[in-house]
Amino acid sequence: MRFLYLSQGTPPAQDRSMNTPHDAPLYLRLAQHYLGAIESGALSPGDRMPSVRSLTRLHQVSLSTALQACRYLEEKGWLEARERSGYYVCRPRRLSLPPSSEPPVPARIDAAQFLGIHERVSDFLARCEQHSLRLNLAQAFGSPEAYPAAALKNAAVRALRLQPDILVEPTPWHGEPGFRSVLARRALESGMRLTADEVVVTHGCTEAMNLALRAVTQPGDTVAVESPCYFGLLQIVQSLGLRSIEIPTSPQHGMSVEALELALQTQPIRTVVVIPNFQNPLGSVMPDDRKAAIVALCAQYGVALIEDDTYAALGDDEQPLRALKSWDEGGGVIHCASLHKTLAPGMRLGWINGGRWHARIKMLKYAQSRPNDAFLQLTAREFIASAAFNRHLNRLRRLLREQRSAVAESIARHFPAGTRLSMPQGGMLLWVQLPKLRNPRAMFETALREGIRFAPGWIFTNSDRYDNYLRLNCGIPFTPEFEAAIRRLAQIVQEAQA
Amino acid sequence: MRFLYLSQGTPPAQDRSMNTPHDAPLYLRLAQHYLGAIESGALSPGDRMPSVRSLTRLHQVSLSTALQACRYLEEKGWLEARERSGYYVCRPRRLSLPPSSEPPVPARIDAAQFLGIHERVSDFLARCEQHSLRLNLAQAFGSPEAYPAAALKNAAVRALRLQPDILVEPTPWHGEPGFRSVLARRALESGMRLTADEVVVTHGCTEAMNLALRAVTQPGDTVAVESPCYFGLLQIVQSLGLRSIEIPTSPQHGMSVEALELALQTQPIRTVVVIPNFQNPLGSVMPDDRKAAIVALCAQYGVALIEDDTYAALGDDEQPLRALKSWDEGGGVIHCASLHKTLAPGMRLGWINGGRWHARIKMLKYAQSRPNDAFLQLTAREFIASAAFNRHLNRLRRLLREQRSAVAESIARHFPAGTRLSMPQGGMLLWVQLPKLRNPRAMFETALREGIRFAPGWIFTNSDRYDNYLRLNCGIPFTPEFEAAIRRLAQIVQEAQA
Repeated sequence: MRFLYLSQGTPPAQDRSMNTPHDAPLYLRLAQHYLGAIESGALSPGDRMPSVRSLTRLHQVSLSTALQACRYLEEKGWLEARERSGYYVCRPRRLSLPPSSEPPVPARIDAAQFLGIHERVSDFLARCEQHSLRLNLAQAFGSPEAYPAAALKNAAVRALRLQPDILVEPTPWHGEPGFRSVLARRALESGMRLTADEVVVTHGCTEAMNLALRAVTQPGDTVAVESPCYFGLLQIVQSLGLRSIEIPTSPQHGMSVEALELALQTQPIRTVVVIPNFQNPLGSVMPDDRKAAIVALCAQYGVALIEDDTYAALGDDEQPLRALKSWDEGGGVIHCASLHKTLAPGMRLGWINGGRWHARIKMLKYAQSRPNDAFLQLTAREFIASAAFNRHLNRLRRLLREQRSAVAESIARHFPAGTRLSMPQGGMLLWVQLPKLRNPRAMFETALREGIRFAPGWIFTNSDRYDNYLRLNCGIPFTPEFEAAIRRLAQIVQEAQA
Repeated sequence: MRFLYLSQGTPPAQDRSMNTPHDAPLYLRLAQHYLGAIESGALSPGDRMPSVRSLTRLHQVSLSTALQACRYLEEKGWLEARERSGYYVCRPRRLSLPPSSEPPVPARIDAAQFLGIHERVSDFLARCEQHSLRLNLAQAFGSPEAYPAAALKNAAVRALRLQPDILVEPTPWHGEPGFRSVLARRALESGMRLTADEVVVTHGCTEAMNLALRAVTQPGDTVAVESPCYFGLLQIVQSLGLRSIEIPTSPQHGMSVEALELALQTQPIRTVVVIPNFQNPLGSVMPDDRKAAIVALCAQYGVALIEDDTYAALGDDEQPLRALKSWDEGGGVIHCASLHKTLAPGMRLGWINGGRWHARIKMLKYAQSRPNDAFLQLTAREFIASAAFNRHLNRLRRLLREQRSAVAESIARHFPAGTRLSMPQGGMLLWVQLPKLRNPRAMFETALREGIRFAPGWIFTNSDRYDNYLRLNCGIPFTPEFEAAIRRLAQIVQEAQA
């Protein structure tokens, strides 16, 4: 987790420790030279930096010094590397924000927090439908341009050619075999060893989470969830007649394992649900040692650990993030994921690996909606099995990083003092902590009336502890309209300040 | 409901009251003449009957007499009319079977019948997976040839051309608007007046039934179901923690309204689930007066009435059958249906009209699996809105009638005395009552071992009252392999007789 520690109003030059003396290392002096060019406007955002090889010629430095200089500027956020095409000048990060508050370490877990999230989410959705929309920042997926529409269309046509009867044939039980194989193969990258038979295809991660919870709980049971918690999960929990208990979760390293242990000691918790990678809404990633610890803790207490691993492929770093499931030895972890964010928001393709509950989940899926249609699975398989999928993911990662960074900068520029933000290193969501507001719900209504929709903090909890937070989607291009919406939102927030 | 009343071994000539005296009406003598030709083999099954117009010329009779003769032979099952192409000779119904037993009228409803259907269905499915398959008669949909694969493929390609971003765009809430409009328009044919907004698209009728039950019940509640009852429903009921009570259901006219009233008086029933048209597995159709009565009864007792109306379009008669919903005045009926049987077994497209529970069902669908992928809805819309859909339905009806009749005849020919069968006038299912067996489950196992899979009676109940019943799928062509399987099944039954 990297933070933007610069305080508001501070120009970056004062922070960047680049006014280097002459005895500074050569690469620093070279970097300083080019930073000057950027600040003077000789190199503008979007310009291509001279290639590393040409730097060696121009400045009579070694290849490694030239490379070090570029990497330094990249690390500081002035340059970005684009695959096979060199370094480019970034938009300058003029302003930035302090990170979001860490949750307090609880002395005890409060069990008296079972309000009706279902009504909150329903109310939120109903209000959204009442107002015409200028800009939707409430979603959690990219805009169509972020996904490979043409290639998927071709894959669909190919699938129809390959299996012309696919729309009229019975759907294969538990999922299309080829698609399940590809998923099992890709699971290796997250550290899991699965066979195709252990994968059950579902209607998105949402159905997978429903099945997981139905498999391991009875109505009335208690589920430990993150706080803040993805509102879709709170809704599932309530719709199944379950109770949720919210475990403090850090914007830096995810669910507090210590707080969870306390909860397991004192509450009748039946299962724990976690988004270990790019948590929704925080964007936090659990470090590997905490992932291992939470798996061990749940095994020790004999409770099922359900992971929603939808965002793992969307890190700035190509390095795949490990799934909790990769530490699972006794089958106590249920792994759920989907292609909804990474490949195609129009294809509701998810899957579940049920661990010990695999057979029960298969039957529940059969009873709940029968096997998924084969056609979309075959279409996805055609695409995922090709090299085009990784190329698409690289492009999407870069796009999301750029858009996230542009939105964060705009927030830093326009939002009032007291606004805080921890910068995630992947995914498409920003979780913004606002200064104290007189009436957060009125602020949300005002924005909605102006056609600006965001996900308000209170739908991510059963309590009122996130009333002055909001979640923004950076999956859509940062257009002038987007910038204008942020500016207007900032005014609305300012007017609503306590 | 028309029965095959001829007892086994009786040649049709002795029954047909066609040995008409010379003073019989002219049309009867004309019919008799052609029946002779059929019996002698001069006209074989599949041959075209001389046209009505040529009959007038050949026999110097009026057009109305010629038509009356053809209709008489059609009514008796010797001829069949094919659209725009005249009459054809049918396969003769040499043998036939007494109708299935009517359920006894209960003095009281037995509430102590809550066995674990979930385990029964699971066990059935697991056993099926253990054996390699020669012929699958356990399903309830047609083979690929019965459906318009090529036209749907074209519709899919057209849909991709129409909306090239459809796979990467967010899925429209509650269903694709055009698809919902077409569904609302077609609902008129079943006597329902709906707007597109009142339709929620689901993953098949199975998800619709799940949502309906979740909307109107709490775990622990009691649901009145038909007996025999579609096993998928019993499985849903159990998986949701509900209890089912089985209401006697007639092979002729569906659920007994009298027995249901008794149950409503004596049991804490929360909702009633009915398949009014071509009940699965019976094939029964509720007459309109009983449909009206059951809607009124449920309204009177204030319980939700859920109808599964999946098969209505598959009657031998083109005349559409009315939905229970068409009698609903207070919003107490929830209507569920799908295209799975009528259009495309490979497309899991269902929908639900939730009556009073519409808003709750929308939220449950959102929480359970989010809106359906738009692509398949658009594909279906493209096809259903065209004249090709009605042409396909007519062809499918004819096909199912022919196949059902061929299977029934084969059963009549091969199965031992004591076998009974009520002949449905639509759909694809035959519910066969066998003579008393020593060990019905061993019989099922023997058939499975030989690769013949059917749906055994005991999965359609929580009791043991259908142990000597089986359900056969007539959606697949009656090939020599099919006939051989029926012959073998008959032997297995014979050997298992008590």
